[in-house]
Amino acid sequence: MPRVHNFSAGPAALPESVLQEAQAELLDYRGCGMSILEMSHRSHAFSEVIQDAENTLRRLVGIPSNYHVLFLQGGATLQFAGVPMNLMRTGRAGYIVSGNFARLAWQEARKYGEAEVLSSSEDTGFDRIPDLAPVAERAAVGDLDYVYICQNNTIFGTMFSTLPDCGATPLVADVSSCFLSMPLDVERYGLIYAGAQKNAGPAGVTVVIVRDDLLGEGPALACCPSYMSYRTQADKDSMMNTPNTFGIYLCGKVFRWVENEGGLAAMEKRNRQKAKTLYDLLDRSEIFVPTAQPESRSISNVTFRCATPELDEAFISGARERGIEGIKGHRLVGGMRASIYNAVSQASVDALAAYMQEFEESRRSN
Amino acid sequence: MPRVHNFSAGPAALPESVLQEAQAELLDYRGCGMSILEMSHRSHAFSEVIQDAENTLRRLVGIPSNYHVLFLQGGATLQFAGVPMNLMRTGRAGYIVSGNFARLAWQEARKYGEAEVLSSSEDTGFDRIPDLAPVAERAAVGDLDYVYICQNNTIFGTMFSTLPDCGATPLVADVSSCFLSMPLDVERYGLIYAGAQKNAGPAGVTVVIVRDDLLGEGPALACCPSYMSYRTQADKDSMMNTPNTFGIYLCGKVFRWVENEGGLAAMEKRNRQKAKTLYDLLDRSEIFVPTAQPESRSISNVTFRCATPELDEAFISGARERGIEGIKGHRLVGGMRASIYNAVSQASVDALAAYMQEFEESRRSN
Repeated sequence: MPRVHNFSAGPAALPESVLQEAQAELLDYRGCGMSILEMSHRSHAFSEVIQDAENTLRRLVGIPSNYHVLFLQGGATLQFAGVPMNLMRTGRAGYIVSGNFARLAWQEARKYGEAEVLSSSEDTGFDRIPDLAPVAERAAVGDLDYVYICQNNTIFGTMFSTLPDCGATPLVADVSSCFLSMPLDVERYGLIYAGAQKNAGPAGVTVVIVRDDLLGEGPALACCPSYMSYRTQADKDSMMNTPNTFGIYLCGKVFRWVENEGGLAAMEKRNRQKAKTLYDLLDRSEIFVPTAQPESRSISNVTFRCATPELDEAFISGARERGIEGIKGHRLVGGMRASIYNAVSQASVDALAAYMQEFEESRRSN
Repeated sequence: MPRVHNFSAGPAALPESVLQEAQAELLDYRGCGMSILEMSHRSHAFSEVIQDAENTLRRLVGIPSNYHVLFLQGGATLQFAGVPMNLMRTGRAGYIVSGNFARLAWQEARKYGEAEVLSSSEDTGFDRIPDLAPVAERAAVGDLDYVYICQNNTIFGTMFSTLPDCGATPLVADVSSCFLSMPLDVERYGLIYAGAQKNAGPAGVTVVIVRDDLLGEGPALACCPSYMSYRTQADKDSMMNTPNTFGIYLCGKVFRWVENEGGLAAMEKRNRQKAKTLYDLLDRSEIFVPTAQPESRSISNVTFRCATPELDEAFISGARERGIEGIKGHRLVGGMRASIYNAVSQASVDALAAYMQEFEESRRSN
């Protein structure tokens, strides 16, 4: 079967050339006589793989040398605990609750200390990024270990277009669904993490970028599992135990692909164009309603719905017949969501847009 | 290059047919028009994959219905914390320290409660399974939340040939390096876990098999990260967040391969034969010394050394020239280690044995 137009929110579309490379060398990694899947994580060949993945990511994002790059497991959910366990040294942090995953991170942090909600958009159904003015004010007091944001809200289709002003307080960001979608000014953050399964690779790898001085001698809390100690993982180059070797190998290939395609600035340009194609259509539509407020719109996940759930269903089912997959909205909100990560081409977006127009016209003439 | 003889301790050899299947469908999983790597973990196709993996494993091992099967991330190291965080309800557990990983698990548990060493073989360099008599005696008191063992000690080449008698106290076992190598009487255990990267699949998946009644309403300790709650993961069928989808997919294929090859009894027969080939040779040798005591010998990892590190090095380097890889011993102990997991064929073992004989003869004639 030809490849479908894949708008999945994650795991998500990967560059076809990356898959082809992985396929070609799956039984014999570059003359080693074994698969990358069968290779010791301590072998010379794998050491090169993980080092190359890190170096490529450092070039791509421009990661300063006082930041560590870690390749961990357990997804964002494990980091919801890892962040407070490592960083809550005085026991107080601030959370901006801009969506479901930000709320989950805040709830988890409450197990480990005082986690204040500095700003929230829950009252309007997370249709926007919350007001950032109270954040700057609160951070200025200087007693927070960090300020936490979820930079792109996959479910609600919103993203921070400007970062909160945290002064000297470290900013911690879950960038899972916007990582590598545009340039990232690492020095604005104390810690950044991303589940790889959107723009960076397959499920099962979490990339953590963290400033060295925040790690001190070890985690803030004694109950932090050794595996989750950023200090230990940094000291051991993510190899305190066996990492997800195949996942890291694929991430490295995706990083190289992004670099060869022009880097993060080129990705942003493409992603903005893809987003514009869909938002322009939604803003003109009489049948589709975009669900995120214009000033908060994501360039990674475009969310919308029809007037009724029945129409949504008809739209989704017709999409499938046209080889358009993964556009069903998250179960918490319903409707539709088109995730237009780096590996989703403008051609796929154009195919979706054409179908949206077709659907609208057919409904209008009914 | 032809495939080498791969004796890696993990990640380790996988069945060639599993790799071929994965390769064939890497760009299009069974007519879905996308890779398994690109597919939502909530999709119908992936739900079938994870359900089939679990069902196959249940058949293969004979897992009773009151045990859950979980597919988690983070390796054994994360379980070192997960076990006490979930199960230390009265705050006291017993550990049998039979090697490096058992010791690490014990050290981690001490962060969460009283972790007693019930028996240890550290004084003889972990060359044997410790005396189990004190374990039965201590467990009979009835105040331990669990007794913990590492059933096969990868680094030292030892395994438990009989399980400790724990009475009513739940037995918890790290079976990473002997999982699926022989039949397993699940009802003897409260909890079993295994990093997949030896006999079960690729690195990045941890299989946990746990008796439902041990999970109660949730973890014993409030500081347990939500991701690590066995109760939550069991209730959510390992999908409280995005699991390692590709890893689980490959595990399912390995489980099917084991089943098609005759199941666990057939695996044990083969593994015992492979081990016998090497131990017989070691016991006759005048140059190689087997390092594990005979009654404690593993059928997964055969450890040995020569009289000097220089000879070890010469042997390892000659092996590589003959397409024999991964036989260097763990950095803690040096020497050699041949891991002869399910996917390592008798032919590979014979090739190693032939080289050992050749090496011995060449040294004798010197």
